[in-house]
Amino acid sequence: MLLSLPIMNRQTLVQQIHQKKSVLCVGLDTDLQKIPQHLLQEKDPAFAFNKAIIDATKEVTVAYKINTAFYEAQGIEGWLTMQKTLAYIPQNIFTIADAKRGDIGNTSEQYARTFFETYPYDSVTVAPYMGEDSVKPFLGFKDKWAIVLGLTSNAGSKDFQLQSFGDEFLYEKVLKTVATWGSPDNIMFVIGATREDQLKHVRSLLPQHFFLIPGVGAQGGDVPTVCKNTLNEDGGILINVSRAVIYSSSGNDFAAKAHDAAIAYQQEMAAFF
Amino acid sequence: MLLSLPIMNRQTLVQQIHQKKSVLCVGLDTDLQKIPQHLLQEKDPAFAFNKAIIDATKEVTVAYKINTAFYEAQGIEGWLTMQKTLAYIPQNIFTIADAKRGDIGNTSEQYARTFFETYPYDSVTVAPYMGEDSVKPFLGFKDKWAIVLGLTSNAGSKDFQLQSFGDEFLYEKVLKTVATWGSPDNIMFVIGATREDQLKHVRSLLPQHFFLIPGVGAQGGDVPTVCKNTLNEDGGILINVSRAVIYSSSGNDFAAKAHDAAIAYQQEMAAFF
Repeated sequence: MLLSLPIMNRQTLVQQIHQKKSVLCVGLDTDLQKIPQHLLQEKDPAFAFNKAIIDATKEVTVAYKINTAFYEAQGIEGWLTMQKTLAYIPQNIFTIADAKRGDIGNTSEQYARTFFETYPYDSVTVAPYMGEDSVKPFLGFKDKWAIVLGLTSNAGSKDFQLQSFGDEFLYEKVLKTVATWGSPDNIMFVIGATREDQLKHVRSLLPQHFFLIPGVGAQGGDVPTVCKNTLNEDGGILINVSRAVIYSSSGNDFAAKAHDAAIAYQQEMAAFF
Repeated sequence: MLLSLPIMNRQTLVQQIHQKKSVLCVGLDTDLQKIPQHLLQEKDPAFAFNKAIIDATKEVTVAYKINTAFYEAQGIEGWLTMQKTLAYIPQNIFTIADAKRGDIGNTSEQYARTFFETYPYDSVTVAPYMGEDSVKPFLGFKDKWAIVLGLTSNAGSKDFQLQSFGDEFLYEKVLKTVATWGSPDNIMFVIGATREDQLKHVRSLLPQHFFLIPGVGAQGGDVPTVCKNTLNEDGGILINVSRAVIYSSSGNDFAAKAHDAAIAYQQEMAAFF
């Protein structure tokens, strides 16, 4: 008899969203300079921190986003921490390698293998600048997603993404073009919009796709504006909060405070279900 | 008394170029599926391959480019191989982490630490889509370079880079804008042009910057066209060849054949010195 293991696919994700009345994604940007100092005596301080944060937030969280840069900077040790963290995330919660990869075809294939096989994430963030053959290798894996940069939430989004490109902005051209390379079942987009008109506009361009939405919390966006303008019947969004959840306290109560912060975000979201 | 260790800076690079009459960069896209099968009995087959390739080519090579994707896909073992390979490259030869990173400021800082400190490369390739704060963190390290994607050599370059952006192509806008964020001493550009008019045009836009030029060999570009249109008094270019050097033979003679291929490229280059 086959064991009925939970499989992470679009249906599981949508189910979690409706069950938890939440689109909260917690970003594990785990920085040894910022975690509570008492954890530094642990054998693997970053993993001890992540484990406590996951335990404290998983009840209201539908996705965890691991910012690979923070792990890569620690060398081999960091990759080991990342591996343990990924394995510790409950199987019915969606996982994102926030790695912003993208290269010519044969190289993107290697990155897809890295983040879908070597490290079995459900999704990986992908940079679009190199075009179709740099994105396509991420789209051939069952129940796996490329989350392609559309409009990011940082100041630098104005340099290229928000420049006029013919009669539209570059990011609109990117969204429309990339969407034709796959489907809402294997492509999501990073939409770091905090402005109501942008959120509304992007949802009208792409009614079915999931959006990964950073910019809430430390970067100034708010949950009701995002939910009002982008939620669809599947949920259709993942609102990422990193620092405003995981660094809620630098003391012994860091996990309890992260729990409280996550619950507060979830309650704001629940009002829209 | 201080030991006079060779320091890798612009002067060392230019010196190497003039001494060797070469702008050859060998790309170590080391793929376990493609290396000679007899190496698979070695403890670390990829390192055994890289070591032999470096020994066979270093006499005429001024830079080695490590394509990180091929190492990342192997997990921890791959990072160990990469570390050993980087350490094995002679100190007066320029090293490139071809990693195509780029993210919001605090995350790009982590990537800069990864490739300039944890792994002490001289340079790292950087994707420009997220704008100024995604590139700037790579520019604050003495004698280190960000090599920013301008025009890439793959088919997908037509999707965005070669689309009209007002009265210019997106890649031209990127080159002009990014150049203002630093100087020729900390920014180079990836220019995968194989067409004479593009090469000439890009050199006229940026007379002083170094260009990393892929697309020669397996991808169809040729050395004389590139040299004629882009060489400047410092050399000013690094022509990358990966597959056409490192996979010259799949037999026991792979290193000897790689040596011959590297020499042949260098001789084409020497004609322009």
